[in-house]
Amino acid sequence: MRSKIAFLKQEEMPNQWYNIQADLPNPVQPYLHPGTGKPTVPDDWTPLFPMNLIEQEFSTERFLDIPEEVLEKLLIWRPTPLIRAYGLEKYLNTPAKIYYKNEAVSPAGSHKPNTAVAQVYYNKVAGVERITTETGAGQWGSALSFACSLFDMPLKVYMVKVSFEQKPYRKLLMNSWGAECVASPSPDTNFGRQVLAENPDTPGSLGIAISEAAEDAVTSKVKTKYSLGSVLNHVMMHQTVIGLETQKQMKMFGDYPDVVIGCVGGGSNFAGLSFPFIRDKIYGKEVSIIGVEPTACPTMTRAPFLYDFGDSAATTPLVPMYTLGHTFIPAPLHAGGLRYHGLAPLVSQLIKDELIEARAYDQLKTYEAGLIFARNEGIVCAPETNHAIAVAIDEALKAKEEGREKTILFNLSGHGLLDLSGYDAYMSGKLTDYSLPQEDIDKNLEALSAYPKPK
Amino acid sequence: MRSKIAFLKQEEMPNQWYNIQADLPNPVQPYLHPGTGKPTVPDDWTPLFPMNLIEQEFSTERFLDIPEEVLEKLLIWRPTPLIRAYGLEKYLNTPAKIYYKNEAVSPAGSHKPNTAVAQVYYNKVAGVERITTETGAGQWGSALSFACSLFDMPLKVYMVKVSFEQKPYRKLLMNSWGAECVASPSPDTNFGRQVLAENPDTPGSLGIAISEAAEDAVTSKVKTKYSLGSVLNHVMMHQTVIGLETQKQMKMFGDYPDVVIGCVGGGSNFAGLSFPFIRDKIYGKEVSIIGVEPTACPTMTRAPFLYDFGDSAATTPLVPMYTLGHTFIPAPLHAGGLRYHGLAPLVSQLIKDELIEARAYDQLKTYEAGLIFARNEGIVCAPETNHAIAVAIDEALKAKEEGREKTILFNLSGHGLLDLSGYDAYMSGKLTDYSLPQEDIDKNLEALSAYPKPK
Repeated sequence: MRSKIAFLKQEEMPNQWYNIQADLPNPVQPYLHPGTGKPTVPDDWTPLFPMNLIEQEFSTERFLDIPEEVLEKLLIWRPTPLIRAYGLEKYLNTPAKIYYKNEAVSPAGSHKPNTAVAQVYYNKVAGVERITTETGAGQWGSALSFACSLFDMPLKVYMVKVSFEQKPYRKLLMNSWGAECVASPSPDTNFGRQVLAENPDTPGSLGIAISEAAEDAVTSKVKTKYSLGSVLNHVMMHQTVIGLETQKQMKMFGDYPDVVIGCVGGGSNFAGLSFPFIRDKIYGKEVSIIGVEPTACPTMTRAPFLYDFGDSAATTPLVPMYTLGHTFIPAPLHAGGLRYHGLAPLVSQLIKDELIEARAYDQLKTYEAGLIFARNEGIVCAPETNHAIAVAIDEALKAKEEGREKTILFNLSGHGLLDLSGYDAYMSGKLTDYSLPQEDIDKNLEALSAYPKPK
Repeated sequence: MRSKIAFLKQEEMPNQWYNIQADLPNPVQPYLHPGTGKPTVPDDWTPLFPMNLIEQEFSTERFLDIPEEVLEKLLIWRPTPLIRAYGLEKYLNTPAKIYYKNEAVSPAGSHKPNTAVAQVYYNKVAGVERITTETGAGQWGSALSFACSLFDMPLKVYMVKVSFEQKPYRKLLMNSWGAECVASPSPDTNFGRQVLAENPDTPGSLGIAISEAAEDAVTSKVKTKYSLGSVLNHVMMHQTVIGLETQKQMKMFGDYPDVVIGCVGGGSNFAGLSFPFIRDKIYGKEVSIIGVEPTACPTMTRAPFLYDFGDSAATTPLVPMYTLGHTFIPAPLHAGGLRYHGLAPLVSQLIKDELIEARAYDQLKTYEAGLIFARNEGIVCAPETNHAIAVAIDEALKAKEEGREKTILFNLSGHGLLDLSGYDAYMSGKLTDYSLPQEDIDKNLEALSAYPKPK
């Protein structure tokens, strides 16, 4: 019988995270203090994060041990399977071999619990009593609710309003794990009230929700910290268990990818799968790494590399990244997890250094790909994941044209069981693409001219 | 690091099903033709099922090979993990060891695809062109939609109306896999129209939906067969991969269960986990096997062992089983998968022969158990599964009282991500228990006095 699925045993689970900062050809550029314009030091971050996570953020150690308490929670669903997509290959009639890493088997349905469990653990041991966060599509809010329940940590989630309304089950799921969830902008923060006063009908954005969660954390009377589900260095590192496992599993198949694909919002599922492969690439291995985003939020493909704020209220340190501007509000895509104006500094630096290729896909094309995958491989994926599938299909069709066997690997970052309204809209012909005029991009970037420029 | 999760490699996946008919102390009693009162022969079943599945239904071979085409589809998510519930053990402060088999990791979110994949395959090779089925909570309809999409088989699902309305995402999920789904009773069949005329506001029942799906199959112009997600012998057999895997995984933990627990509607997830352990028990091993059902649909605990129809329209052969009567319509429980008037003949026979202990739990108690599990083990389970969790918790607390280490194993038959409205109702105090007066039971059993009695 041919090999279809690769499972690792518990003892084969990676017990260290990989920190790509140790191997970068050019180091990631420092976060800057917006007041002084100087590189931030760990103390600048203490209002938002506990020091143990800040230390990880600044670390350049190549491998960091995963604490046993974190490992044991990851082992609720990890190591996740790597699966050969024979059904999809047959449907496409391609000589390419397609593999996917299935992160959808986590209790929250996505890769997000990989960092959620770690972050809540580090907050817990630092004596933090309460956590706040934002969520776009709801994957991150669900994952952090899951992790907080395991460590008995109170949590408040600010959920981007358009997703809050499209996906009522997300809130119920977070509630089931004991977390509180409100629509953002909310009347619960100064910034939320300000946005609502100016634009009561705003669909919200990740940037706004981050501002609210951060404001709540720094102003709360109990010892509250903020938790971010993407973008930051330590988040990327926590996700590398995905790629480290996959490397072992590809060996079980006796194979190695020619192409590694992930969808990109803040960058975390993409980084999680690809960073260990990018390490191989840095040291001479031939492998293409492709990140894919929606055309309606084209951070990687149409935005400049600048210093910008991580949130809409401009309260975070300045982050060196490709950015559409912190005031940019993306169209209400169903792939809510990809609606972020910026991009992880690590992923940004790797694009700048041409170690990663970036692509943008229209929404309709990604749902078409998602349905092909669902009906031939059996998994109904998250709208974000459908972007990665669309690239995998295009790469497989290109291999067919070229008549060459090619090994394609993508990250199945989450399932779509709580995101079915997008499929409904697509199947009933109500889904549309969004074009983004250049002047809309330029407009939001104007304000950034006042800030320092990265190299 | 202590053992938390056991994964099997692809080559350790069972490649045969276990047929408990080969080991029963007393053979299961024959299905009867309702007209003649005589045991049915395979030909009597051909209007509903293809002959290859009928042969399995009548088989007494101990092990049947799983076809390679079926194995490869099962390998999309199997072998599923066996997990030690350290978090729950700690919360309960019990000396008991609690293990659960996680069937929720399938693309449809439950154990149901185990038989769906096999049934669609056998229909396909028999030249069947279209399938019909019923679904209660939606787990079976989703699973069969998933399997039909993999084998390119058209499907129509009749979904019990109360669940159709409580769970709109279920229909969207089935549609995403290319299946059609209508609320039952529907205007699409004679029986559906008749029920609607008599009682337009009926919540529907599994019995009614089965009648509609069967009528559709036998009256359709294209070659259509009917598929049942539980009750029948071949369905129980397809599910035994669960228990066969678990036996290997318990060995990896160096353990063996004292108690094996599953929730029971038609009986399939319970049979799937427990039958291989019941085999051990028949041959002398000491192990308790506990099936649990809702008090509002107490087939095992309050109903007699009789011959009855599998469907409400009284069109199937007579089935020897514990039954509340085919006209019984259970209260609109959220655990829709447990709302069936009857019970698998194999499970019924094993209860009769005292190899299985049966219990009934109130709805509120099961949601309480489900939330405890979600917040300590991280998985938000299906309302059906919460019944099994409630028993596992009670057994663990009993072990604590008795001060003895006991090994408890239960089947986590499905996740609750598409069944969150029940959690919402529970958390907001709107969920109620349902009492079932004895006269309601007696009333529905009267009509059965006209039929033969099993031994």
